[in-house]
Amino acid sequence: MAIVLGPNRYGKAETRLVRVTRDGGTHSLTDLNVSVALAGDLAATHLTGDNTGVLPTDTMKNTVYAFAKQHGVGEPEEFALLLARHFRKTQGQIDQVKITIESYGWDRLGPHSFRREGAQTRIAQVVATAGDEQVVSGVTGLTLMNTTASEFHGFIKDRYTTLPETRDRILATAVDARWRHLAPAGDWAASYHGALDALTTAFVNTYSSSLQQTLFAMGSYVLSTRPEIAEIRLALPNKHHYLVDLAPFGLANENEVFIAGDRPYGLIEGTVTRDDAPPATAEWYQ
Amino acid sequence: MAIVLGPNRYGKAETRLVRVTRDGGTHSLTDLNVSVALAGDLAATHLTGDNTGVLPTDTMKNTVYAFAKQHGVGEPEEFALLLARHFRKTQGQIDQVKITIESYGWDRLGPHSFRREGAQTRIAQVVATAGDEQVVSGVTGLTLMNTTASEFHGFIKDRYTTLPETRDRILATAVDARWRHLAPAGDWAASYHGALDALTTAFVNTYSSSLQQTLFAMGSYVLSTRPEIAEIRLALPNKHHYLVDLAPFGLANENEVFIAGDRPYGLIEGTVTRDDAPPATAEWYQ
Amino acid sequence: MAIVLGPNRYGKAETRLVRVTRDGGTHSLTDLNVSVALAGDLAATHLTGDNTGVLPTDTMKNTVYAFAKQHGVGEPEEFALLLARHFRKTQGQIDQVKITIESYGWDRLGPHSFRREGAQTRIAQVVATAGDEQVVSGVTGLTLMNTTASEFHGFIKDRYTTLPETRDRILATAVDARWRHLAPAGDWAASYHGALDALTTAFVNTYSSSLQQTLFAMGSYVLSTRPEIAEIRLALPNKHHYLVDLAPFGLANENEVFIAGDRPYGLIEGTVTRDDAPPATAEWYQ
Amino acid sequence: MAIVLGPNRYGKAETRLVRVTRDGGTHSLTDLNVSVALAGDLAATHLTGDNTGVLPTDTMKNTVYAFAKQHGVGEPEEFALLLARHFRKTQGQIDQVKITIESYGWDRLGPHSFRREGAQTRIAQVVATAGDEQVVSGVTGLTLMNTTASEFHGFIKDRYTTLPETRDRILATAVDARWRHLAPAGDWAASYHGALDALTTAFVNTYSSSLQQTLFAMGSYVLSTRPEIAEIRLALPNKHHYLVDLAPFGLANENEVFIAGDRPYGLIEGTVTRDDAPPATAEWYQ
Repeated sequence: MAIVLGPNRYGKAETRLVRVTRDGGTHSLTDLNVSVALAGDLAATHLTGDNTGVLPTDTMKNTVYAFAKQHGVGEPEEFALLLARHFRKTQGQIDQVKITIESYGWDRLGPHSFRREGAQTRIAQVVATAGDEQVVSGVTGLTLMNTTASEFHGFIKDRYTTLPETRDRILATAVDARWRHLAPAGDWAASYHGALDALTTAFVNTYSSSLQQTLFAMGSYVLSTRPEIAEIRLALPNKHHYLVDLAPFGLANENEVFIAGDRPYGLIEGTVTRDDAPPATAEWYQ
Repeated sequence: MAIVLGPNRYGKAETRLVRVTRDGGTHSLTDLNVSVALAGDLAATHLTGDNTGVLPTDTMKNTVYAFAKQHGVGEPEEFALLLARHFRKTQGQIDQVKITIESYGWDRLGPHSFRREGAQTRIAQVVATAGDEQVVSGVTGLTLMNTTASEFHGFIKDRYTTLPETRDRILATAVDARWRHLAPAGDWAASYHGALDALTTAFVNTYSSSLQQTLFAMGSYVLSTRPEIAEIRLALPNKHHYLVDLAPFGLANENEVFIAGDRPYGLIEGTVTRDDAPPATAEWYQ
Repeated sequence: MAIVLGPNRYGKAETRLVRVTRDGGTHSLTDLNVSVALAGDLAATHLTGDNTGVLPTDTMKNTVYAFAKQHGVGEPEEFALLLARHFRKTQGQIDQVKITIESYGWDRLGPHSFRREGAQTRIAQVVATAGDEQVVSGVTGLTLMNTTASEFHGFIKDRYTTLPETRDRILATAVDARWRHLAPAGDWAASYHGALDALTTAFVNTYSSSLQQTLFAMGSYVLSTRPEIAEIRLALPNKHHYLVDLAPFGLANENEVFIAGDRPYGLIEGTVTRDDAPPATAEWYQ
Repeated sequence: MAIVLGPNRYGKAETRLVRVTRDGGTHSLTDLNVSVALAGDLAATHLTGDNTGVLPTDTMKNTVYAFAKQHGVGEPEEFALLLARHFRKTQGQIDQVKITIESYGWDRLGPHSFRREGAQTRIAQVVATAGDEQVVSGVTGLTLMNTTASEFHGFIKDRYTTLPETRDRILATAVDARWRHLAPAGDWAASYHGALDALTTAFVNTYSSSLQQTLFAMGSYVLSTRPEIAEIRLALPNKHHYLVDLAPFGLANENEVFIAGDRPYGLIEGTVTRDDAPPATAEWYQ
């Protein structure tokens, strides 16, 4: 038996970049959080501290800033591809480059004035390997609620079940979604906003018997409206809203007064996919 | 010398209430975080554990939920006044009631569907004493940026000063504001949205020589447009955006590429007031 | 009526300083988060953007780092006094300097090796004005629990009360305390550790009829054992542990199985003071 | 082409359990955060909202509390195994049960008194499938620092490299580790504390040429001292401490004064494994 190095990677996480573009007096703004991770032949630094194959993570950070100037940023998927290709091309010892970008939206208030929108964060992720560039987009923190049109009944009852069946409840979730594109090129802005609209529309329009049913409806609607997307993974916390028992106060609670709970919460995770989609070439939703 | 009890208070913090109102098939939604604090003759419980003058904090929580049903919620200032008056009226041993409410906005997506807006949180606070009801409103988490029209120069230089003067910088802040109303009645919704608009408009329109100047402009504009407001306190973190030095890479950075810094940050705090405003009857911005 | 500038201050918040001291091969470590706030004649920058009376917050940050080298750090109260005196002495336009320091503890593992202790954060705060230097110390995040020896009964019952009386409950809190010293000099390390021990000992040894009673016992014990302390403010969240109803499963719960709740929580705040203590010269616990 | 359901699971996350055990007047305390996730034949609820195969997540929560009474808790790995076996045995439609437990430590202060230790959180995770029970333990938030005995040089320099080589730097990290056990039985307490000691000892004793080298040394030492562990995954953020340039103030900084940086940070991830270890039967470190 020997003790050996297994899978590994390294990089610079959370480089915070704001890129301003000036078109005369009208400015535009990109606000990103960029993480780089490289994997490949990195045994020497682990085993002996020999760093001849190690590009410093500080250099990765510098590259992010320099590229923002040299090439501009554009859509986050584009910038992730640009960075991934650079590290693939220049670092022969590296087999896999993973670039993850969080993009924060700002609403325009004037030619050079902006207000941070807080509703959700856009995600872009590229994994570049020898034979492939896999592009994943996503969103996190998109919080949605239906105050009715949600039921939950017909479930298993065992010794530990006390939950009453319900024909009318609040359904609320904070959507965390990643979707894998079929190709490493496209109209990334249209695709993102289309997917976001599809997620929201399906949540609103689904009469729900379970959060699982809503999840599948959301994923299906994204795939049926966005042909460029191969599959989608949704992680949906069930943000429980508990009906308050007002009977001790002589009051009836007709689905009007709720406790918004923090913990625990249900967590529903699922993938919706095209049955003819080519398989992923790298982990894509973890 | 004796060891004695000084100022004290107690209450229930962060009761999370969601109130749904149904107008036929069209629902509306209020999402609040309610905190109650009572002060008065509470020596017995501190000194001997005699709780005959203690209303349980659990009862305060129940009251929040029951009142949401009995009276509805309305604007957060209204609900805070309702709760404050109840505890003043029913708890003879209590001199001062403080109700603080955070209100989370939701955008309508359909008759019973909503998306949480994340841009800012609305605040309402009422302090009710024997002779007065003081109403304070506010906002937190309103993040604004001007990508130009901000200078900073002419400041003190001492042995420890290395900051270069600048005629063009990013100015960004996350507005945390509280404003004190002249009277405990009013059109709270119009007042809040008017104040929010005034803060934003003044930030956008002020050519800034310092964040202090912007702060005073924001406060002044609120007071000049909202006659119902006596004074306003602003706490403005200077969310520094550092120009990246691209010279080592043979590149010029013409105010295009910035590091968004986390810590440290400048913190500018100031009050703007009417010189004829009656004094506050309780602490109001801490 | 005119719109005028009211109370204001500015400074640099959260300068993160790690200071290593080398005594031969044995190192020691100080890990601080330093915030500076200055108040005084700052009208010009607010009203006209004239910065001739403004020391940049960047300079404050530089001063923190330079002083850490020039003078060393020592106990956080000492370092706060050093910084406060510097700004008072050199900035004639400033009436009040407030230095707040969070200090993070590290346990020694070897001559140059350390493990961050996470149990609590030490606080030191100095407010220096023309006639006074007020020193406040404190602690935050000290989480304590008694699994018995806590009762709660004899409280007010009204229409909205459903809480049952109890003769045996868990009492848990995360201590947030500030204590004001009588003089701006002393053995700060001994004072801090003595106060911390007193808080903990009193929590452990008090048979509690209410968290208020425990609060007063904790504050009293600090004052009775630490003559250098004038008064103490405690903010004690009641970290509720709810007894789980196991009856539906045919099980009895004899104070064994609890839900650790997040929100809402009781919040008990109180000051314990010496009746002959000179009054505070600045706000000290907010 | 059809749109189909892919991999999925569901469960209750973050059930907060405090279990008190009374041995006469001496109490002991277990403080856990338990998450349950089930995977199997769950197509019906996704596709049609038919919940006949769905055990409510509320029931999972109830089961956690009831089992804490019925069976006690013991070490977190034991409790995770107990819960996993229960759901495997009773839910025929479920192929895989994943139980994840965070365990928070408390130091004893007296027979029924405790102080929360904040230094790190213990992790236990069980994945039970038809043929296997895989047990993973771990730790998160263990923050370690060496103030010397760390170098970084000999790395790749390209156009974007500005980092100077160094022969003496601070090395600090917040250890996030998971280790996979060879068998689903053992002395879990001894194993956890032994692994924790090995991680800490190896960090302290390794003269480091790179954080990768330290990572491998830590992982190797765990495996060489703990025969019951098959492999270990470490994720080590490089908590950068930047040397402050004091030259502008006429001061030399001989590795004494540092900025503790927040973002960006290096992130080093790697697995150390026995070359004869049987493969994992489920994902184990994500």
